[in-house]
Amino acid sequence: MLIKDIGEFDLIKRISADLTPTGRSVIVGIGDDSAVLHPPAGRLQLVTTDMLVENVHFRLDIAEPFQIGWKSIAVNISDIAAMGGEPTYAFISIGLQRETTVEFVDDLYSGMRRIAKAYSVDIVGGDTVSSPHLIINIALLGEVEAENVVLRSGAQTGDALVVTGDLGGSEAGLAILKHGLPVEGTEKHLMPTPRVREGRLLAKSGHVTSMIDISDGLASEVHHICEASGTGARLYVRNIPISDNVHRVAEHIGKKSHDFALYGGEDYELLFTCQPDKVSLLAEDILKDCGTPLTTVGQIMEMSHSITMEDTSGRIVPLEPRGYDHFAPST
Amino acid sequence: MLIKDIGEFDLIKRISADLTPTGRSVIVGIGDDSAVLHPPAGRLQLVTTDMLVENVHFRLDIAEPFQIGWKSIAVNISDIAAMGGEPTYAFISIGLQRETTVEFVDDLYSGMRRIAKAYSVDIVGGDTVSSPHLIINIALLGEVEAENVVLRSGAQTGDALVVTGDLGGSEAGLAILKHGLPVEGTEKHLMPTPRVREGRLLAKSGHVTSMIDISDGLASEVHHICEASGTGARLYVRNIPISDNVHRVAEHIGKKSHDFALYGGEDYELLFTCQPDKVSLLAEDILKDCGTPLTTVGQIMEMSHSITMEDTSGRIVPLEPRGYDHFAPST
Repeated sequence: MLIKDIGEFDLIKRISADLTPTGRSVIVGIGDDSAVLHPPAGRLQLVTTDMLVENVHFRLDIAEPFQIGWKSIAVNISDIAAMGGEPTYAFISIGLQRETTVEFVDDLYSGMRRIAKAYSVDIVGGDTVSSPHLIINIALLGEVEAENVVLRSGAQTGDALVVTGDLGGSEAGLAILKHGLPVEGTEKHLMPTPRVREGRLLAKSGHVTSMIDISDGLASEVHHICEASGTGARLYVRNIPISDNVHRVAEHIGKKSHDFALYGGEDYELLFTCQPDKVSLLAEDILKDCGTPLTTVGQIMEMSHSITMEDTSGRIVPLEPRGYDHFAPST
Repeated sequence: MLIKDIGEFDLIKRISADLTPTGRSVIVGIGDDSAVLHPPAGRLQLVTTDMLVENVHFRLDIAEPFQIGWKSIAVNISDIAAMGGEPTYAFISIGLQRETTVEFVDDLYSGMRRIAKAYSVDIVGGDTVSSPHLIINIALLGEVEAENVVLRSGAQTGDALVVTGDLGGSEAGLAILKHGLPVEGTEKHLMPTPRVREGRLLAKSGHVTSMIDISDGLASEVHHICEASGTGARLYVRNIPISDNVHRVAEHIGKKSHDFALYGGEDYELLFTCQPDKVSLLAEDILKDCGTPLTTVGQIMEMSHSITMEDTSGRIVPLEPRGYDHFAPST
């Protein structure tokens, strides 16, 4: 059955059917001109939005609709995590071809509902329109205590640059899917896990001076923190945590595995800064509470030192902020 | 110059350049993982989102980029107005072709900035991606006092159905543009005026029992109010306020002018309900304060009376909720 056979209003009924919010009290969700919500009591309001376009952000021959639904919300939750916040309400705008099957839309929303439930996010609004390509836009609200919000701009000279989990897995997963490699590990690309719990604990610790999520690749994110904080930095490439699977994929396709981490992006791990002597305490807490390791990958330096990396052969070279540029000339 | 010549990051710098918020205090706007805002103090939070797709919601051969920018924010402001609220913060996601000119983007954002300024909206976030078609998604926040919020669901049997301004102008404007008619009046289609001031005054009066903005056509909106309120209604077609220009356009293309109002949509006037004896007081206040007339177009009836209209020849016929269906089979 195609969505043009059931029409817009039945489609909206279908996708709003199971969206009854669970915990939080919503005054009006879907079904009026706007959602009506209680504002965060004594907390700051966080808002982030991401647009995902077919064949730019996802490919229907690579990802299942359930996974696309999951990931579209995950990338937004990750932005809230990077502020030290908790996600609250999601608004889903979707552009669908008229020839899309109802089953496809059901699976897409099923993925959205699954991650929303896992992260206590209420889906309370959106828009449904026809479009020549599949487009998903998520607007996500969140909250954070004023004393816990972590910006990109607080990094201090001497701070350690620390990451959660391991890196390069998303780009390696994409390579597995594209080339049909006999290697496991596509989960990180298809259904990333936003680090909300880790972000909350880091923010509440009071030790974290800046934080960002790794959506564009480690190299770009280090630049973002340095630009916002007015600092330089040095990255130690040999310290970057990279899983065995990523090494295997790199071997298969003849690439350097650390390039996946530096320039690949979409890992949705957190990159943060804190005083070096606080890292082991934080690492112990986060590992115990979340099972997620922390790794120091570099340090913040004075601005005059610029932004560099020590490569695997020990040379100090400029760290290029290479990553995906939506409008860069194709080469 | 094309946006692929300047790249994503210069494009973002360009479009965020003039977005310094004016009145409201923003903690973090564009430039971190999410915006950080003070929540509405003692008011409810409103959130609405609309996605606009090239050749579905607008045509580049008909509308200037400035007008598309204006309208994309206007349609969202109108949703906040329909709750009795004030718009506050906008988040703009945009999907652009790589071959788009920088001038086009400048003009588009110029229209967005113009209406944002006119309605005291701060543009504080968004996303910029490449897309095979122009796509704009706006997420708009707003606020309203708990005692003033007006839902669709409060209409009472016996209430008058009242509209602001006149109807059909948007659809007639589109016809002028499509057919090159020698008639004035395309403004309402290209750059609609959301009725925030009118919505606020109506909400604060305490007399309005339900309200909605007219985006799908009067017929559809009456159905939305009746469905939410559990009532029937009767519309008096001869009472629908229609401007001389709309009559002229209807003559030119051989259509009934009230059909523009009933099924055309995109007028972004407000439709509301209140006790009949309150209409003249409200009309006087709104005309004095905003220069906008109010007109009673029908009445709320018991649900058993269903939803009907008295047509121009005095016959009572069912009011069909015809309007734009994004996924209806093309006929």
